[in-house]
Amino acid sequence: MTVRFGLLGAGRIGKVHAHAIAGNADARLVAVADAVAPAAEALAAQYGAAVRDAAAIIAADDIDAVVICTPTNTHADLIEAAARAGKAIFCEKPIDLALDRVKACLRVVGETKATLMVGFNRRFDPHFAAVRGAIDAGRIGKVEMVTITSRDPGAPPADYIRVSGGIFRDMTIHDFDMARFLLGEEVATVYATASVLVDPAIGKLGDFDSASLVLTTATGRQCLISNSRRASYGYDQRIEVHGSKGAVSAENQRPVSIEVATAEGYTRPPLHDFFMTRYTEAYAAEIAAFVTAVTTGKPAAPGGEDGLAALALAEAALRSVAEGRQVAMTEIL
Amino acid sequence: MTVRFGLLGAGRIGKVHAHAIAGNADARLVAVADAVAPAAEALAAQYGAAVRDAAAIIAADDIDAVVICTPTNTHADLIEAAARAGKAIFCEKPIDLALDRVKACLRVVGETKATLMVGFNRRFDPHFAAVRGAIDAGRIGKVEMVTITSRDPGAPPADYIRVSGGIFRDMTIHDFDMARFLLGEEVATVYATASVLVDPAIGKLGDFDSASLVLTTATGRQCLISNSRRASYGYDQRIEVHGSKGAVSAENQRPVSIEVATAEGYTRPPLHDFFMTRYTEAYAAEIAAFVTAVTTGKPAAPGGEDGLAALALAEAALRSVAEGRQVAMTEIL
Amino acid sequence: MTVRFGLLGAGRIGKVHAHAIAGNADARLVAVADAVAPAAEALAAQYGAAVRDAAAIIAADDIDAVVICTPTNTHADLIEAAARAGKAIFCEKPIDLALDRVKACLRVVGETKATLMVGFNRRFDPHFAAVRGAIDAGRIGKVEMVTITSRDPGAPPADYIRVSGGIFRDMTIHDFDMARFLLGEEVATVYATASVLVDPAIGKLGDFDSASLVLTTATGRQCLISNSRRASYGYDQRIEVHGSKGAVSAENQRPVSIEVATAEGYTRPPLHDFFMTRYTEAYAAEIAAFVTAVTTGKPAAPGGEDGLAALALAEAALRSVAEGRQVAMTEIL
Amino acid sequence: MTVRFGLLGAGRIGKVHAHAIAGNADARLVAVADAVAPAAEALAAQYGAAVRDAAAIIAADDIDAVVICTPTNTHADLIEAAARAGKAIFCEKPIDLALDRVKACLRVVGETKATLMVGFNRRFDPHFAAVRGAIDAGRIGKVEMVTITSRDPGAPPADYIRVSGGIFRDMTIHDFDMARFLLGEEVATVYATASVLVDPAIGKLGDFDSASLVLTTATGRQCLISNSRRASYGYDQRIEVHGSKGAVSAENQRPVSIEVATAEGYTRPPLHDFFMTRYTEAYAAEIAAFVTAVTTGKPAAPGGEDGLAALALAEAALRSVAEGRQVAMTEIL
Repeated sequence: MTVRFGLLGAGRIGKVHAHAIAGNADARLVAVADAVAPAAEALAAQYGAAVRDAAAIIAADDIDAVVICTPTNTHADLIEAAARAGKAIFCEKPIDLALDRVKACLRVVGETKATLMVGFNRRFDPHFAAVRGAIDAGRIGKVEMVTITSRDPGAPPADYIRVSGGIFRDMTIHDFDMARFLLGEEVATVYATASVLVDPAIGKLGDFDSASLVLTTATGRQCLISNSRRASYGYDQRIEVHGSKGAVSAENQRPVSIEVATAEGYTRPPLHDFFMTRYTEAYAAEIAAFVTAVTTGKPAAPGGEDGLAALALAEAALRSVAEGRQVAMTEIL
Repeated sequence: MTVRFGLLGAGRIGKVHAHAIAGNADARLVAVADAVAPAAEALAAQYGAAVRDAAAIIAADDIDAVVICTPTNTHADLIEAAARAGKAIFCEKPIDLALDRVKACLRVVGETKATLMVGFNRRFDPHFAAVRGAIDAGRIGKVEMVTITSRDPGAPPADYIRVSGGIFRDMTIHDFDMARFLLGEEVATVYATASVLVDPAIGKLGDFDSASLVLTTATGRQCLISNSRRASYGYDQRIEVHGSKGAVSAENQRPVSIEVATAEGYTRPPLHDFFMTRYTEAYAAEIAAFVTAVTTGKPAAPGGEDGLAALALAEAALRSVAEGRQVAMTEIL
Repeated sequence: MTVRFGLLGAGRIGKVHAHAIAGNADARLVAVADAVAPAAEALAAQYGAAVRDAAAIIAADDIDAVVICTPTNTHADLIEAAARAGKAIFCEKPIDLALDRVKACLRVVGETKATLMVGFNRRFDPHFAAVRGAIDAGRIGKVEMVTITSRDPGAPPADYIRVSGGIFRDMTIHDFDMARFLLGEEVATVYATASVLVDPAIGKLGDFDSASLVLTTATGRQCLISNSRRASYGYDQRIEVHGSKGAVSAENQRPVSIEVATAEGYTRPPLHDFFMTRYTEAYAAEIAAFVTAVTTGKPAAPGGEDGLAALALAEAALRSVAEGRQVAMTEIL
Repeated sequence: MTVRFGLLGAGRIGKVHAHAIAGNADARLVAVADAVAPAAEALAAQYGAAVRDAAAIIAADDIDAVVICTPTNTHADLIEAAARAGKAIFCEKPIDLALDRVKACLRVVGETKATLMVGFNRRFDPHFAAVRGAIDAGRIGKVEMVTITSRDPGAPPADYIRVSGGIFRDMTIHDFDMARFLLGEEVATVYATASVLVDPAIGKLGDFDSASLVLTTATGRQCLISNSRRASYGYDQRIEVHGSKGAVSAENQRPVSIEVATAEGYTRPPLHDFFMTRYTEAYAAEIAAFVTAVTTGKPAAPGGEDGLAALALAEAALRSVAEGRQVAMTEIL
């Protein structure tokens, strides 16, 4: 079976998914929608797809699945519409910035029994997936501590920050999902501290650019997260997990792995400077997993509940910063 | 301009190039030929191309360039035919196992002014290309010593060995090309020693499975090459260049870069175990360079003379082993 | 000038310091005291020193400096006695487990103007010292985030835990000192969470074996600390500092740096498994720094105030765990 | 039993051995001799030893062993005198620059049954010793290929070059010993090429500063050696051994292992820049091994035959360069 795709949103991440669909032998891009017509047209032309509007795509008989890459505030409505139309749904994170809206949306998904997968691409990075594989294979014993270092090469523009929902909902949310993916237990408490060290403009918008977090589980497992909106040396994406019998870590990735030795020392190039080059393989594997879910009928993971859980952790982090204390997840959900 | 390709040979490496052509926005696979009809049909179907025979492809008006992936003993004839038909030519190495046949073939290429590029894919590996880039940027001063470690995960079957031309023409030939690519001067002398340490069957065929070589240039630059047909830890492909002001090296590549720490130590996974996964990016970049040469009319590199030079070094190595002495390239060419 | 030393305490750490004194050209070990006579005698014999009791050493005219390696509950009394006797004092951490006792002791040190250095040996580790050096040289810009990973190879016996003051005063205290050494600002708030994951016996004693901490400074700099009483792979001691222009990190150390590559992967040996082999160079450099302070009259660092500050951070961590909130240092000191 | 040492030669390497003797619990430095009286006096004073002349040390009843660190042209005579006087002998390499003189000297050693150990310190480097340990433990199967990279930070002065015996007898000789230590079989053939790339002054003295060598054994094992008198990045000392089941390598060592990450990349400091800091541990372990041989009566290794064998390999290398061919060791010994 070939999964016939409609793409909603032809922006930066939409292009990434269109490319992944085109490269997947079991998938075909049938139609593209975007509020900006030339964007939809260009992308459709590149992959031999049609241009339609979102409603038409959702209603179409020749489309099995939609990929939602539109602005965040449209996600929940589109998910609901697609679910009711019987489409399988891949939606970029987050489902919505508001917990209640997410819950309402997931009720519709539940009622319609729609397949919904949420775009936490990092689970599909081969290196991070191998970390999880090592845990599952029992190589490090019982998980005790997860350490996630996640730093962007540079801060996004103010216009982006303004609608992003803030650092926890926009950036840390990926780390919350990785924490859940690796801890092996649900998070019980969240502590977060955050400050503005990179750009005062971010602070003026009420957001932060530097954050440190500690999550715990019911049995006392711990997760440390370090976030910054600036890393001169590139996109810093590391994970390590310490267990009762050992530890496993995933190193940073760089485009080219050479080393130059001179009187000044031994120098390797900086890291990837962009999430799309860093996670190229992850995006392809993510769509492949979604295609497999659609064709086999098996559950799509990460699903809507994972999207909800990560967002709830972001809520808890915000409250923790505001109140200077650890927040129990029972206070949020 | 889109370069319209005919592919001659639908075997293992033919598939690699078909994939690279399909992924290149300026290239299109028009037709596929293979003596084994189902192989041609399967590959043609996958990429929406036609099945034709080699002669028809070479004669076709709707084809600009051919990629030659047939058995080695057909390369020179096909190059000549394609050159006379005005096609641009990408040919897998080697052009032929016999120096005289290569020279004759290159005369035809020269007379027809055909574009000819030879498949030394390693020049296009991003890591090795970055080594060369560091040299060209002056980061290590004047090149003094090149060290190439090149070991296959395992020995090929006897049937392959029998027609391969031997380890120097089949395996070391890539290292000869890298040596020429990095030394910055032509090779003046070759010393080689070789033995059978891996598989006695290889020795019975008159070939070797383990070799060490030293090349020198006129000004005294030196290159060490270490070859083995066996490496339990994967496809060992390393290069380092030592110069007057520093050194530059390219590390081995592995599919997944995690590290597991236990009481037994810190363990990273083995290397790639296959040239096609190790050099995926190189094959794509190689076809892209060929497409650029065809569309811009600029010289294709590495070209026929590079193919000839590497083969001559293999001849010198064979003579060196036979006679237990260093061989001057003036004795060969 | 040669500094003449009296050593109080001939146990494990006393031997380390005796060895460092013997290897220092400007120092001489004159006398050794220990409640266990044979211990004192053996150490004295090895280095050609006399055996005396502690009071005699403190009173002696032929001794310039004392090194205090006795049980923690004797430190403060011995410091005061030695200070009043005009001796320079090197004391193992901590000065005392009770903040008030430390403060009282430091008042005596202040009144007598005694030279007092506290044994935070990690500041003298060449690798960690180089991290600080890179910061001081401006290589990473302004410090923003410090991450300290500090895990013991195995948990100490219950008898040790019982008198240790708990994980924060016994183990994290080194990390608190490193945080202060590297943050460039005093710590303003402490958050800690801790659990018992390694050994229930530790929990029965009211202590923890696994802890995660976040420290902040007034301007929003952040420090993450990860502690465990167990690391199968050895003594895990890493530091990294992220700044506005870059980052600097110190890797783990191992006794032997080889790598074995097989079909199972690439394996390096485990880390040092003991603080005395890991920090051999640090202990020698520490005594050298003390000798320099004594002979030049310059201030000894880290001094008594540093010992007090680290202990106060441990107090804050205990309160944070008890109350589930971040604790301001103004609440403690 | 404490071994009582007389040190012949108080120069640079003499000081290293004096320090190692002083740090060895089973050894004592009794007397020092040097043609330059103040040198002997200073070293004797530092370690509480007497100053005597060489003849007196060799004749003395209170001395068990001599360490010979005098100029090379005195080694053989001193070895013979000490052997006849019943002393155990540790001699810096080489025994002599002339093969015949070495053979004559070893005859005396054989007749007197004297204990003789030759200063190939690298066998005692913990990292290289661990490489050998991994081989002996069967971790890489049967040894097939040894690769030795050995580059000095900078060229020695002309006065040193003039009496050094040339690069093969002075510098490569250590690599020849390591090759023999690791190959597991005697070397059968030697090929060497050498040039002057670093300093024309070295060429004017008839010597070389850059060399590449290939050694083989009777069963076809191979060893590559790369030598340069210049390495901007420090003292480059690496070894790797490839076997039938895997490979083992020893990395370079640096004084401080930090890494600084900036927009320019990830930089580690240069390597050690001097053999005495690089091989500090090796020198101590070497004297310890000698002390053990003297006290237990077990054979000292590496012994005189090892010194002879390495020198013979240097002779073969010289002949190989002169004649442009591989030289069989049967031609030399």
